[in-house]
Amino acid sequence: MSYQAPIKDMLFVLNELANLQQVSQLPGCEDATVDTVEAVLEENAKFCGEVVAPLNHPSDKEPSFWHDGQVTTSAGFKVAFQAFGESGWQGVQHPQEFGGQGLPKLVATPCTEMLNAASISFALVALLTDGAIEALLTAGSDEQKALYLEPLITGKWTGTMNLTEPQAGSDLAAVRTRAVPQGDGTYKIFGTKIFITYGEHDMAENIIHLVLARTPDAPPGVKGISLFIVPKFLINEDGTPGARNDAHCVSIEHKLGIKASPTAVLQFGDNGGAIGTLVGEENRGLEYMFIMMNAARFGVGMQGIGLAERAYQQAVAFAKDRIQSRDLAGSSGPVAIINHPDVRRMLMSMRAQTEAARALAYVGAGISDIAHYHADEATRKANLAVYEYLVPVIKGWSTEMSENVARDGVQVHGGMGFIEETGAAQHYRDAKILTIYEGTTAIQANDLVGRKTVRDGGAVAKSIIAQVRATEAALAEVQGADFAAIRAQLALGSAALEEVVDFVVANVKSDIKGVFAGSVLYLKLAGIVLGGWQMARAALVAQQKLDAGQGDASFLRAKIATARFFADHILSGAGGLRSAIVDGSAGVLALDIEQF
Amino acid sequence: MSYQAPIKDMLFVLNELANLQQVSQLPGCEDATVDTVEAVLEENAKFCGEVVAPLNHPSDKEPSFWHDGQVTTSAGFKVAFQAFGESGWQGVQHPQEFGGQGLPKLVATPCTEMLNAASISFALVALLTDGAIEALLTAGSDEQKALYLEPLITGKWTGTMNLTEPQAGSDLAAVRTRAVPQGDGTYKIFGTKIFITYGEHDMAENIIHLVLARTPDAPPGVKGISLFIVPKFLINEDGTPGARNDAHCVSIEHKLGIKASPTAVLQFGDNGGAIGTLVGEENRGLEYMFIMMNAARFGVGMQGIGLAERAYQQAVAFAKDRIQSRDLAGSSGPVAIINHPDVRRMLMSMRAQTEAARALAYVGAGISDIAHYHADEATRKANLAVYEYLVPVIKGWSTEMSENVARDGVQVHGGMGFIEETGAAQHYRDAKILTIYEGTTAIQANDLVGRKTVRDGGAVAKSIIAQVRATEAALAEVQGADFAAIRAQLALGSAALEEVVDFVVANVKSDIKGVFAGSVLYLKLAGIVLGGWQMARAALVAQQKLDAGQGDASFLRAKIATARFFADHILSGAGGLRSAIVDGSAGVLALDIEQF
Repeated sequence: MSYQAPIKDMLFVLNELANLQQVSQLPGCEDATVDTVEAVLEENAKFCGEVVAPLNHPSDKEPSFWHDGQVTTSAGFKVAFQAFGESGWQGVQHPQEFGGQGLPKLVATPCTEMLNAASISFALVALLTDGAIEALLTAGSDEQKALYLEPLITGKWTGTMNLTEPQAGSDLAAVRTRAVPQGDGTYKIFGTKIFITYGEHDMAENIIHLVLARTPDAPPGVKGISLFIVPKFLINEDGTPGARNDAHCVSIEHKLGIKASPTAVLQFGDNGGAIGTLVGEENRGLEYMFIMMNAARFGVGMQGIGLAERAYQQAVAFAKDRIQSRDLAGSSGPVAIINHPDVRRMLMSMRAQTEAARALAYVGAGISDIAHYHADEATRKANLAVYEYLVPVIKGWSTEMSENVARDGVQVHGGMGFIEETGAAQHYRDAKILTIYEGTTAIQANDLVGRKTVRDGGAVAKSIIAQVRATEAALAEVQGADFAAIRAQLALGSAALEEVVDFVVANVKSDIKGVFAGSVLYLKLAGIVLGGWQMARAALVAQQKLDAGQGDASFLRAKIATARFFADHILSGAGGLRSAIVDGSAGVLALDIEQF
Repeated sequence: MSYQAPIKDMLFVLNELANLQQVSQLPGCEDATVDTVEAVLEENAKFCGEVVAPLNHPSDKEPSFWHDGQVTTSAGFKVAFQAFGESGWQGVQHPQEFGGQGLPKLVATPCTEMLNAASISFALVALLTDGAIEALLTAGSDEQKALYLEPLITGKWTGTMNLTEPQAGSDLAAVRTRAVPQGDGTYKIFGTKIFITYGEHDMAENIIHLVLARTPDAPPGVKGISLFIVPKFLINEDGTPGARNDAHCVSIEHKLGIKASPTAVLQFGDNGGAIGTLVGEENRGLEYMFIMMNAARFGVGMQGIGLAERAYQQAVAFAKDRIQSRDLAGSSGPVAIINHPDVRRMLMSMRAQTEAARALAYVGAGISDIAHYHADEATRKANLAVYEYLVPVIKGWSTEMSENVARDGVQVHGGMGFIEETGAAQHYRDAKILTIYEGTTAIQANDLVGRKTVRDGGAVAKSIIAQVRATEAALAEVQGADFAAIRAQLALGSAALEEVVDFVVANVKSDIKGVFAGSVLYLKLAGIVLGGWQMARAALVAQQKLDAGQGDASFLRAKIATARFFADHILSGAGGLRSAIVDGSAGVLALDIEQF
């Protein structure tokens, strides 16, 4: 159950597909040279593999526990998080002026993947802290930035996102938590928040809660929500943690997975009011929270990819080790089960989906960097639109695929996979949260349909499809059955995606429920077509390098074979998804509620 | 989390699709009149819903535990199993001469579904006992039958299957357990068996282990395996349990799911030898064990269907109850989430797959009854061949679909689904064993390809496809978009299945690994096409009844809509599976082992 970061594949994707070269020439990204990035990745891989990965299974068996308002995290978490902060890993993508490394998102992304492959439960504290940092960087006052950013970026403190309330679930319009102005610039916060990841723990000296609440005169619904900083310990003049604030953890949840990560119920203001300060302007809280959420959504996509890689590695190791039954083609005795074709099929499926999702996410990260750092505003804007189209796909598809991969990981282990000691089952349990939190797949799909497709009449989607078509043309120039198969399936996939985009745009007004009945299927279709596109691009690069006698031939040939597998086994599902979206809404919506 | 048996759908399937009328006219099945069957189902539904279903979630939280060789099962299990036996539910399909009810498999099948929907962990003791009964009925001596059958059939004792050993997994050729003849007709058994479901428990006064072992002169491999009865307590002259046998439970497993069902490691013969008697002839153990396994495989398919139904009911109840966010088409406030199209899509997918798998399994049970009871040998033989083709599909596909359904069940619950108290997560955990035990899906698929397709050159498969085509012709006679859509997808599906059968038969000799690389996909394709066929048949019947003004119009319309959903959303995947099977083996097999 060890974890070896797939540095070779990561560097291949960064350099050959995600334009690291171009990103490193952007203003502010000059430190991200190919050599530096390789060194950062290797150092991070060492930390994640040696310090964090060994904690993953033991911390599942001995999860965080609550006693009398305090949460004790699993053995090793506190020390590992201290090392994480001190080594600068919380700060990879954050500004140097606040103690970060100031590297582009494209470099932080493989680091995020590695940390999550090592332990999703552990990585969550960093993910939430990243979100708090992003929100403060965007909307915090200079004073707030000076007070909070450096301790968060250096891992001395951690951050949380407080959205959900018992009666509200994902529906933020229903938020009831109150914020009462005290006349001195502070507010008193009263309310209950649930599902607060790392809402209480013992790994850092302070916890900075970012809390959605309503001021007394706020309009109803999502337009009346403001964002507040509510630290667990109020901050002294000298920046050190002082008096305990009135924000308390009353319980943590008993969950299916990510058990080491404490999921808190937080009670604000039961003893007079929790003191908070407003972030930005009143009633703009949702907007700021979306900054955290968008960063976190991409991050959850990376959790899916990290988990999938870990499950894949574990399944491969088991399949090479486990001797059972003879080879179908004949053998003198039983062989390692990796020789059995269906085991091989599952491993290839795990591998192909993980590589495709990784490539798509890293490409997205590179586009995000261009959208942030490029000198030209029009270029920034165009790239931002593409990135924003990709975020729900990266979150939704990478996490949905991680469930399938974790499932296959158990299946490869057979009966041993069902025994908790083996560790494969933990991935299956952990994966299930990824399609739910930071917005379920359906919420990602609503975003993809509404804000990302309908709003611009499908323009960005079509611009991406045009790029897929260019890759198809390039595939036609290469000889061989692999490339013919990849091209054929990619062409079917892009045609299906284009038809679906047209269907969505054309029908959303006349038949909104019919269109949204297929929203998740559209997200999945976009995932496999865009993931398949990246695999096709990867195969083209691999063939060029092989032709030129460059690089590791075994790695490059495996990349082509994996792209071929993805085309025949994953992309081949595009037609069925197209049918279900375009023809399938009648069946979805036919029953009256009483008929269920 | 209550469970209401879907009696209406069960009776519809029994009467309209699975030929209960015809089965009840078979010699020996005369008791199974429509009225009797309805009464049996209602009584069973009451027992399962009121006595067993309430135990499911508590027993997951407080599972069976081992102490000093004894296993204490979860609260309520012992009393419920006593009631189960006394009410005659263990004996539904077993001979009246040994205390059973002597009803056909077609009637026992919905009872099995209900018990498993109520609690898979509980139902397993009955499933394993059924297997032991089947093996003894087929291969036991008269003395053994007289000694063991009545207590097993009346639920006083329970049975186990002892196949797996630590070093062997699913590979029975590697079985090492030894059986040493004592010259008095008994054998002493020495060895270790693992993964023994209900290998030790406190719910019955004796446990009858059926154990695979090798006699001293046995040939190597699967041809040298014999089957032995090894009771936990030796049987006194008067048939009561006597001295403790040397078969002891040394531990039970800590599992992902079905936690209330104890999975034992059994040690035979550590204190001088466990006394056993041979079943049937030496070296024919595997053959007898296959009798148990085939019955058990069908039973595990029913576990998948029962679990899917339970998960569906729970998701529907939550979706009707949970109020969140406005309706897409506009509403004055938040609405129940069942109104949101993607929730509706997931519920329909859960429902459609469950109904299709139920219909296919019940139809299979009816065919099995004809194969057993029909007066004409040729008819028996023909039906047996069809049943044997269906068994791996019913086991493999019903359980694979149950994983998807349980997954969607959690997803419908959103964040609440990830909290163990909600109960949805238990189904997700429990489901994962079903595709593994009694032969993984890959093992079912090997059976489907090898013994069930290649051996007869695809003849049985083609005969079934011909029946599907007859249904397609009938669909063409009915007006309306629903029937056009169902027919279109069924035609694509049956064409894909036929092409795959031809591919398998044509290529298995020249490219055995290439064919087996697609074996699981072939099984899934057969599942969706044959499940879709049953849904199409159901829709035809429903329309006839609606036209004739018979029956419950709401139920019948829902059946047509559900069949339409199945066609557009599930059957539409047939083309992708076809591609992956026929074109996809290159990608599966391209990598060298070192490249993983």
